[in-house]
Amino acid sequence: MARMTQRRKIHRFQLDGTGAEHPIRFKEDVLAAEEPLEIRLGGTSFSVTMRTPGDDFDLVAGFLVSEGIIRHQAELVSLRFCAGERDGIQTFNVVEAQLRPDVPLPDTMRHVYTSSSCGICGTDSNEAVRKTIHFDASQDALQVPVDLLAELPERLRDAQAVFDRTGGVHAAGLFKVDGSRPELLCLREDVGRHNAVDKVVGWALRQGLLPLSGLVLQVSGRASFELVQKAALAGIPVLSAVSAPSSLAVELAAETGLTLVGFSRGRSLNVYAGRERVGLPLRTGLEEATVSP
Amino acid sequence: MARMTQRRKIHRFQLDGTGAEHPIRFKEDVLAAEEPLEIRLGGTSFSVTMRTPGDDFDLVAGFLVSEGIIRHQAELVSLRFCAGERDGIQTFNVVEAQLRPDVPLPDTMRHVYTSSSCGICGTDSNEAVRKTIHFDASQDALQVPVDLLAELPERLRDAQAVFDRTGGVHAAGLFKVDGSRPELLCLREDVGRHNAVDKVVGWALRQGLLPLSGLVLQVSGRASFELVQKAALAGIPVLSAVSAPSSLAVELAAETGLTLVGFSRGRSLNVYAGRERVGLPLRTGLEEATVSP
Repeated sequence: MARMTQRRKIHRFQLDGTGAEHPIRFKEDVLAAEEPLEIRLGGTSFSVTMRTPGDDFDLVAGFLVSEGIIRHQAELVSLRFCAGERDGIQTFNVVEAQLRPDVPLPDTMRHVYTSSSCGICGTDSNEAVRKTIHFDASQDALQVPVDLLAELPERLRDAQAVFDRTGGVHAAGLFKVDGSRPELLCLREDVGRHNAVDKVVGWALRQGLLPLSGLVLQVSGRASFELVQKAALAGIPVLSAVSAPSSLAVELAAETGLTLVGFSRGRSLNVYAGRERVGLPLRTGLEEATVSP
Repeated sequence: MARMTQRRKIHRFQLDGTGAEHPIRFKEDVLAAEEPLEIRLGGTSFSVTMRTPGDDFDLVAGFLVSEGIIRHQAELVSLRFCAGERDGIQTFNVVEAQLRPDVPLPDTMRHVYTSSSCGICGTDSNEAVRKTIHFDASQDALQVPVDLLAELPERLRDAQAVFDRTGGVHAAGLFKVDGSRPELLCLREDVGRHNAVDKVVGWALRQGLLPLSGLVLQVSGRASFELVQKAALAGIPVLSAVSAPSSLAVELAAETGLTLVGFSRGRSLNVYAGRERVGLPLRTGLEEATVSP
């Protein structure tokens, strides 16, 4: 975890006074690390993303899934760090991905501009952001007892190591929820919500687990359009967020047959789409204590 | 505000039971709207960003500042909505920006690839994300009384209209803090933290106010590298965030002479860089009540 956090001296002001007029403390604070990661395909730069170092191969693999470029383990031949340097030190901030030769490169790398010029516009900017979703989660028969679903944010939070030290990272966790309690399969943290999800999806791709049928993805923040799309591209049937979804997130979830849960706060949750996967509580006579001790 | 929010029927589960085993309510919820905005330069697509509709011209202007393309009002000749359509309805999701002819287009639009191929790599991925910062805020002599600085998150929150209705948007507010209380000059909300800042910066550019010397930018979430860079590109000397900064955010703030405040929670705050701009409290004998009633 060394590279995921950094120590730094800060000035802390405390204003609710214990008598002193201008209390101030010098202390050391632990920060969530953030560094740029350059992703290269066939030796050429494809994207640069700001991320928390760690699980970088998972991040790259998941990013390629989220961009709609790959969807099976076999399409990703290899991943390696290039010799990116800063002040003469290997940065581990450049990753080269080798794809199977038959996998087409993304349009942007083939110098294909899909947007029409303004004179003949009428393109739908919605199309520009929508990827083709190959896995169909709409028929996924998963049923998640509502009380177990409501437990996930707490289970995620309990498992977060970097957040505890910095208070500054998002998390995504992949859960199996078919037993009597949720089982956490993979947890990833990052300063970026999107990266945390890409890291989980990339982990799954590299394990040969895609599509992620029958599983629930719990995220720490809000549910944006892009998070729903990432879940759909990985074949995940249920996405649950601690905070609010956006309008387009709900629209895409409804369209692709995904279950979208928001404002999941232990004692209550909202279902915005795909209500049919939210089942009766497992424990009859469910009391507050069992759900949110 | 019509387009900034959307109403939608949801299923709400409440688990802390008032006797009933499986309480559920159907209700209507207000969602923060999210739609893609395509930004075009000279008739060609430059970028598509997911954003909350509203203040779109500010967003585009600020985005162009953040990309290091423009920094003065005169460099932006005009902004207009193109006839983007979805289901035959004007979407207002495509904006064409006309730049002054002498303003160079960004590298990516000139088909210039700055990254070297992997065989000769050694490029610093840090360089790829760093823009040239033309305004120098390092000499900005602004002094902000620490108690007024600590008030800003609450002042921002009080002024947020969309958040009240949806719980799902970020905010950025530009404050003048040289009197006896902070004066809010501009507030913008968006599902994306970055967009909220771009909207504020774009508003300022369009008012001819750049560089934003002597002002404080308060944001609702965390402080990432990119937010610090946006502030620096707009010449803002003080950036304050409610949550944690990342390591690279602190590094860039220290490098560019910006004051970076984090975990600003009313009664306490942390100064990560540029401590010299945080001054003595204005009100002597400062009590809890004045700062955080």
